[in-house]
Amino acid sequence: MKRLSGSNKEISKILAAEQLELSRQNADVDEAVRQIIEAVKKEGDQALRDYSERFDGVSLTDFEVDQSLIDQAFAEVDPAVLSALENAKANIESYHRQQMEKGFEDQPSQGVIRGQVIRPIERVGVYVPGGTAAYPSSVLMNIIPAKIAGVKEIIMITPPQEHFVPAILVAAKLAGVDKIYQVGGAQGIAAMAYGTETIPKVDKITGPGNIYVATAKKQVYGLVGIDMIAGPSEIGVIADDSANPKYVAADLLSQAEHDVLARAILVTDSQELADAVEAEIEKQLKALPREAIARPSVENNGRIIIAANKNDMFDLMNQVAPEHLEIAMEGAYDYLDRVQNAGSVFLGHYTSEPIGDYYAGANHVLPTTATSRFSSALGVHDFIKRIQYTQYSKTAVNQAEADITTLAYAEGLQAHAKAIEVRNDKD
Amino acid sequence: MKRLSGSNKEISKILAAEQLELSRQNADVDEAVRQIIEAVKKEGDQALRDYSERFDGVSLTDFEVDQSLIDQAFAEVDPAVLSALENAKANIESYHRQQMEKGFEDQPSQGVIRGQVIRPIERVGVYVPGGTAAYPSSVLMNIIPAKIAGVKEIIMITPPQEHFVPAILVAAKLAGVDKIYQVGGAQGIAAMAYGTETIPKVDKITGPGNIYVATAKKQVYGLVGIDMIAGPSEIGVIADDSANPKYVAADLLSQAEHDVLARAILVTDSQELADAVEAEIEKQLKALPREAIARPSVENNGRIIIAANKNDMFDLMNQVAPEHLEIAMEGAYDYLDRVQNAGSVFLGHYTSEPIGDYYAGANHVLPTTATSRFSSALGVHDFIKRIQYTQYSKTAVNQAEADITTLAYAEGLQAHAKAIEVRNDKD
Repeated sequence: MKRLSGSNKEISKILAAEQLELSRQNADVDEAVRQIIEAVKKEGDQALRDYSERFDGVSLTDFEVDQSLIDQAFAEVDPAVLSALENAKANIESYHRQQMEKGFEDQPSQGVIRGQVIRPIERVGVYVPGGTAAYPSSVLMNIIPAKIAGVKEIIMITPPQEHFVPAILVAAKLAGVDKIYQVGGAQGIAAMAYGTETIPKVDKITGPGNIYVATAKKQVYGLVGIDMIAGPSEIGVIADDSANPKYVAADLLSQAEHDVLARAILVTDSQELADAVEAEIEKQLKALPREAIARPSVENNGRIIIAANKNDMFDLMNQVAPEHLEIAMEGAYDYLDRVQNAGSVFLGHYTSEPIGDYYAGANHVLPTTATSRFSSALGVHDFIKRIQYTQYSKTAVNQAEADITTLAYAEGLQAHAKAIEVRNDKD
Repeated sequence: MKRLSGSNKEISKILAAEQLELSRQNADVDEAVRQIIEAVKKEGDQALRDYSERFDGVSLTDFEVDQSLIDQAFAEVDPAVLSALENAKANIESYHRQQMEKGFEDQPSQGVIRGQVIRPIERVGVYVPGGTAAYPSSVLMNIIPAKIAGVKEIIMITPPQEHFVPAILVAAKLAGVDKIYQVGGAQGIAAMAYGTETIPKVDKITGPGNIYVATAKKQVYGLVGIDMIAGPSEIGVIADDSANPKYVAADLLSQAEHDVLARAILVTDSQELADAVEAEIEKQLKALPREAIARPSVENNGRIIIAANKNDMFDLMNQVAPEHLEIAMEGAYDYLDRVQNAGSVFLGHYTSEPIGDYYAGANHVLPTTATSRFSSALGVHDFIKRIQYTQYSKTAVNQAEADITTLAYAEGLQAHAKAIEVRNDKD
């Protein structure tokens, strides 16, 4: 792992430069995705068939994954996996139900009513990657909050497979998906944004994917809503000398194994801990089946930051703004109020981050590459709209007339003023 | 106004095609903005000075609008405008305070704590257009929710002016802005996204602007948060035969006067009302100072949709998903539950939409071009982050171990499983 030390200011500058690098765009992918979207928009299902043949090597006549394939998945799925998915589902549901928003209404003065009602988004599309990146846990994390929000129709798309991972289809059904279609990549995103003969146009698209999927989501944003532009996974660990290096190393590696671009970052005020964690990482890496991914990840993107004191530890980690943040300190709960930027926080020596990936109930779809500065974990709030409403009586609008028309005239918008004045029987 | 009639399905198809047209991108602007952003990223303030000279014709050494200019604005502002802004501010504050979110925490089982804390975004940048599109009401609508959310630093940028509109600077100060800089366009957005020597990098950018500003916001989205990609203003009016055509026409024109691209859409089940409104529009247009804008707006983009019945009226308007929606019907309040897609709703014959633009307190920064299908008015929720947290005791993680590791192994993520197992003293 690369070590950073020095003043907070010096480390801050390095972190800022690294973050900028992470957000660079790729012009070639942009253009390729633009062409795919254009083709799907013009040719619909025919374009989907052409791209499926070209990119996935399959010739499809129908995109829907039918009930027989889902029944087969339930028959094939490992019973222990089914049971674990059911338990995870219960935890995710009980956590997310607490996020449900309520409307409000007040009557600030005679004849005036103001309020806000909450409505679910009507149709949502969830993207689920194929192959080795097919995670049933992500299926639960995307669909359950939409279901709790009250979304009327939830569709899922996933690249065509010779044989679908049973747990993927099972998780989708458990979570409450309405329809599943086998189409992947930028063409799948385009299909959900514009609609085709068989794939319905949705109002919002969520779910992770490769660079083509992410770029397509960015390009259709505006026509449909999207959850976020997800980057590689990140874990930040704040640890003091009370931390167990074996635990810290295992947790850093749990994110490093996702992707060679994943980032594992340790901030500590203990040189001894830093050394011990580094030794443990080396030891554990050798025993890791995914060493070929995890090793370049920690070697290239891993960081150990030695901070002067506890204040600096939190300041620097808030600048990193990690997707996952562990606080491996005694009395971790009391440090929660120092956290300004993070997607999901794991408190204390025993709350290993994978508990959150699979099980505890908080969402694992989280803001990456420092976007936790301004955004949050996926949740029920992402699947609702807040609709404002206002009602003024005749008397109320007449009383407010002077103020409203003063502002309208000041802005040069006479028709705005006129619409108020016409209610005053003056003409 | 162009009339649409026929079956719901036929009208729906026309509306869908029109909406698609609205979301088209402009490749030339994209490229120009990309170059501007690149220059600001590389050259900082020097690029801002160059562009200000080129686009705004001014030579600036310093970008900050200093206290003397703000004092001067307070001295110059019309006292009636100041008083109206203060009253509007009070209404906006009392409405938006009701949006403040609370965190939650539960203990679903022994040794397990889960929760969510709310944190304000740290630094926000608000864009305020210059010239004739400089609206003090928009300044209040952007800054007040950020202030209520608890944002630590709010900066505002606006294009350089020979003489600033006093009400703009006054509104910014009343709302609680921290710093104001005079820089506009895509270069201003780039400055807030990347930071320059004088303009601080922000976490989120809000505020309306022309096509260059909107395109720049779209391009920097991801590096910073943005509020939305705003399109031309829209008003939808659902009116039955109880509506006053004079009021309806005045309200349609109040949005039409904003922009030749603005859309005014009436849905009614009354042919008589449709005719009367059309006659009124013609009559009122002739008396309108901004006729040159409002006339092409209603002629090109205005729509009168004749629906067969009240159900169809709401179905069709939900498909339009207008930014502003008026329900000009008796007992309008009771129809609120039929509204699925709209930014802000105005209930009854006396709640003219401009009441909301200036005064009532609900936000006027609203989702346009059918994006109310998946997004909401600007509000306090746009300036906070929801940070999840989880704490498991040793016993709790050991008890959950079988389920978690089952899922981790099923996903082929052995380091995830290892991070859980290492907490069980097995090795």
